[in-house]
Amino acid sequence: MIHKSAIVGENVRIGSNVKIGAFTTVHDNVVIGDGTEIDGYCEIGYPSALATSDRLVIGSNSRVRSHSVIYSGSVFGNGLVTGHRVTVRENVTAGENLQIGTLSDFQGDCRIGDFVRTHSNVHLGKKSVLGNFVWVFPYVVLTNDPHPPSDTLLGVTVHDFAVIATMSVILPGVSVGEHSLVGAHSLVKDNVDAHSVVAGVPARRICKANEIKLTDGSGRPAYPWPGHFHRGYPDSLVEAWQRKYQESGN
Amino acid sequence: MIHKSAIVGENVRIGSNVKIGAFTTVHDNVVIGDGTEIDGYCEIGYPSALATSDRLVIGSNSRVRSHSVIYSGSVFGNGLVTGHRVTVRENVTAGENLQIGTLSDFQGDCRIGDFVRTHSNVHLGKKSVLGNFVWVFPYVVLTNDPHPPSDTLLGVTVHDFAVIATMSVILPGVSVGEHSLVGAHSLVKDNVDAHSVVAGVPARRICKANEIKLTDGSGRPAYPWPGHFHRGYPDSLVEAWQRKYQESGN
Amino acid sequence: MIHKSAIVGENVRIGSNVKIGAFTTVHDNVVIGDGTEIDGYCEIGYPSALATSDRLVIGSNSRVRSHSVIYSGSVFGNGLVTGHRVTVRENVTAGENLQIGTLSDFQGDCRIGDFVRTHSNVHLGKKSVLGNFVWVFPYVVLTNDPHPPSDTLLGVTVHDFAVIATMSVILPGVSVGEHSLVGAHSLVKDNVDAHSVVAGVPARRICKANEIKLTDGSGRPAYPWPGHFHRGYPDSLVEAWQRKYQESGN
Repeated sequence: MIHKSAIVGENVRIGSNVKIGAFTTVHDNVVIGDGTEIDGYCEIGYPSALATSDRLVIGSNSRVRSHSVIYSGSVFGNGLVTGHRVTVRENVTAGENLQIGTLSDFQGDCRIGDFVRTHSNVHLGKKSVLGNFVWVFPYVVLTNDPHPPSDTLLGVTVHDFAVIATMSVILPGVSVGEHSLVGAHSLVKDNVDAHSVVAGVPARRICKANEIKLTDGSGRPAYPWPGHFHRGYPDSLVEAWQRKYQESGN
Repeated sequence: MIHKSAIVGENVRIGSNVKIGAFTTVHDNVVIGDGTEIDGYCEIGYPSALATSDRLVIGSNSRVRSHSVIYSGSVFGNGLVTGHRVTVRENVTAGENLQIGTLSDFQGDCRIGDFVRTHSNVHLGKKSVLGNFVWVFPYVVLTNDPHPPSDTLLGVTVHDFAVIATMSVILPGVSVGEHSLVGAHSLVKDNVDAHSVVAGVPARRICKANEIKLTDGSGRPAYPWPGHFHRGYPDSLVEAWQRKYQESGN
Repeated sequence: MIHKSAIVGENVRIGSNVKIGAFTTVHDNVVIGDGTEIDGYCEIGYPSALATSDRLVIGSNSRVRSHSVIYSGSVFGNGLVTGHRVTVRENVTAGENLQIGTLSDFQGDCRIGDFVRTHSNVHLGKKSVLGNFVWVFPYVVLTNDPHPPSDTLLGVTVHDFAVIATMSVILPGVSVGEHSLVGAHSLVKDNVDAHSVVAGVPARRICKANEIKLTDGSGRPAYPWPGHFHRGYPDSLVEAWQRKYQESGN
């Protein structure tokens, strides 16, 4: 299951039913859980002098697509899924079933909850904190330097179930509230309230999130999104969401 | 012409005078036309459970640059040219002489006409439809979800000869008209009329496209662009364009 | 120090203590200075019909990270540092200690001074000119075509110590002045005065750069940034900066 052209370093712990693709390099001290598949052309456990640990842990039943680079010093829960050519630098801790889109670039020192999804080309600056069930769409940047270049790092915090749409920039230290929505192509300077929608350059409050309706003609609110969108989440979660959002009238 | 380190799968049909570079993987059921050159470090015919066919067809006299990933289930006409590290997912049908810029990311299920050019880092969401002679510049995103995340996919349609400038986002379901121009760094929410210019966040109509003049002092209109720009198109086309746009006074 | 899977062409001059990683290709006529380290999966000296020279020169004590592609026809001073998957096309001349972020894309025919830093995903169009000590942040694009597509190339010029923040687009022919700051997510159509701040779509003058204060409570100005930011520059430079910016009251 390990391609003969792959290079595997020392002190690597590989679980059962793991596949490692052609021309991939697994550096020293990497731990890969059972059932995980690493494509070809990857660098896994890329050494970094900035890593707080020389280990990298990738949970079970994960899938890392080709040409990805994941640094040493990070820990990923089970069910990690990446697109192609993702970069994840040192000292990231992520929960279960993180999905990272093609070409996304996590700069390190990030904390990420469970079931987070980033689409393609998402850039997380150092010190970014993402809650659970967060969605981040293509070409979004979470920044961290209030007056670049400087030695000050103020990470962005994105709370549970928040959604940041395509090509938006979140300025340093901003908090994006639970179940909120940042519209596409926005520049967010101020904290975003929970359950609200902001958009524009600079972003301003537009409405409550549940005032946005589904385009399917049902008249139902599009947010909170767990009221209608369930693809890829465990059945137990979806059932709880359905109960909760039907009861609340959302 | 196939580098000894390349990996070639089963049921692959390779034309005459094809080159395949070092460390490239060609998966099963790929068809590569005569005279095509695939650089190194590529994955060609990457398997996908979402592909409607297990074949990938790349036409003759094409050039795929290094580190690119092209999924199974797509068909490209002759003369495909890609930059480095492009990603093209499943179920794309493209006409002749498509040029895809470095790091561009086609999400699959797209229809693309003849002689389309995307510059670097162009993101085409699923269900995007591009006509013939379309130009898309760096960091443009064609979106598809009207209230993300959801199960609704409303692709963007870009008509013949339209131009979308750098860092613009086109919202779901929008139609960008023939010979129109979307200015740089715009957010396009509404359909764009043929032969018009829109720009801004959100984008508004600025003028007719032929009111923009070339900066060469000639006083000639910059649009329709086939009146002055011909690099890389077949002579027969260029001659027809010259007749047409000179006769029309444009 | 050259991995056994690496491919090295003809007429390559490799200095002492050079490392070349697994699966990297060094094409013909490349010159690599002493102490330089090239990671795996790179293409170094990628041949180009547009290159004005068939040589590529990478100075001493440089570090090129994995999956990068550097074309023939360019010359880099000592101390080049790149992130992963950078693309640098032909005919770039760069001074000492250029740092290029992950996924950045230099389109060729650029002149770059000393100690320039680009963060991730910076796109430099052909004919871009960057002075010394310039900073460019993620997803910035320097454009060059005033009415795309056309045969006119008007490069952007960025002067010494200027800073361009995340996701900004600079239109063709614009000059960004010394010690100026372009705010995040801006569209810059007009020249930017030295020591000034511009922001917005389109960008307008906001204030003098030294009116922006550090967030550390010191009351000191954040610009000119060499008054407070010194990481990674030689001691002799930093001492001169400290004297200059303390004396001037900045």
